[in-house]
Amino acid sequence: MTNVMIQNGPTRILGLDPGLRRTGWGVVVAEGSRLRWIAHGVVTPPETAPLSERLLWLLEKVGEVCAAHDCDEAAIEEVFVNVNPSSTLKLGHARAAVMLAPARAGLSVAEYSPNLIKKAVVGAGHADKTQIAFMVKRLLPSAGDVKADAADALAVAITHAQLRKRSLLEVLNPVRGAA
Amino acid sequence: MTNVMIQNGPTRILGLDPGLRRTGWGVVVAEGSRLRWIAHGVVTPPETAPLSERLLWLLEKVGEVCAAHDCDEAAIEEVFVNVNPSSTLKLGHARAAVMLAPARAGLSVAEYSPNLIKKAVVGAGHADKTQIAFMVKRLLPSAGDVKADAADALAVAITHAQLRKRSLLEVLNPVRGAA
Repeated sequence: MTNVMIQNGPTRILGLDPGLRRTGWGVVVAEGSRLRWIAHGVVTPPETAPLSERLLWLLEKVGEVCAAHDCDEAAIEEVFVNVNPSSTLKLGHARAAVMLAPARAGLSVAEYSPNLIKKAVVGAGHADKTQIAFMVKRLLPSAGDVKADAADALAVAITHAQLRKRSLLEVLNPVRGAA
Repeated sequence: MTNVMIQNGPTRILGLDPGLRRTGWGVVVAEGSRLRWIAHGVVTPPETAPLSERLLWLLEKVGEVCAAHDCDEAAIEEVFVNVNPSSTLKLGHARAAVMLAPARAGLSVAEYSPNLIKKAVVGAGHADKTQIAFMVKRLLPSAGDVKADAADALAVAITHAQLRKRSLLEVLNPVRGAA
């Protein structure tokens, strides 16, 4: 997890689940302990274009999402290095393009490990994708139907909402926060 | 190698050797069979910054280089997947940020395998870094002192200059090109 500037009041969080074929995104608003769904979706770069154009497409589409929903902070999953080095390299490319979109707009981009995200959303570090999607729908009932990539993106946004809130509590009430 | 738009006349080529710690760049002008050195350098993102900020720094610095030298086309080495998956992931991040800089400016970004670059510059697919640096200095005598990362970047630019020229000849003189 990187350093995150904590701001008080309602905060719009952009969660990202990067991929060169499909990148999921989700936006939530965090205010105190309340969490509200704003939007989610999946963007799919043109498959046949050269790599540089697919990355540019990702950068621009995620940038549009970030601007359209007036996001304040962003969060992304830390990568577990894949067993397949070629997939790892592709994921690295996609992840950089996706992170650069909010970074260009001046947003901080927090990183959370997959286990931390599972703990934050489901309460157990070894939850599977179905459990995550189930809990995302429970925590954000107005989200409606959420496909897998977008559910993972919303899970990262929820994680950031919870962890930035905890940090804020500790800053405002150091004794209560430490208890 | 990706599709490259071939333009006639002098063409300014930006060669790139990406890395999260050090990214080498080099600019040459290709006109017919002539090759002229313009500039080269190395950019080093701030080590302690969060990943998103280091990537943004790379995107912006390489973008400044591209604009300052009014580049027409860009080229980058294809990645041999590293034995260390964590290094592969880092390289994937850096490579995407570095490719996005010329892509954002509307430039095509050609990719060449390390073996093709060695063959184009040294004439042998198994040349080492010292031989590449030596030949880069011979082919671009006005370049002066060139450090390793910048030499690799100039080698990619030279490769693109040679291969785009060959493609152009084939287009203009299909019989001679095929001979």
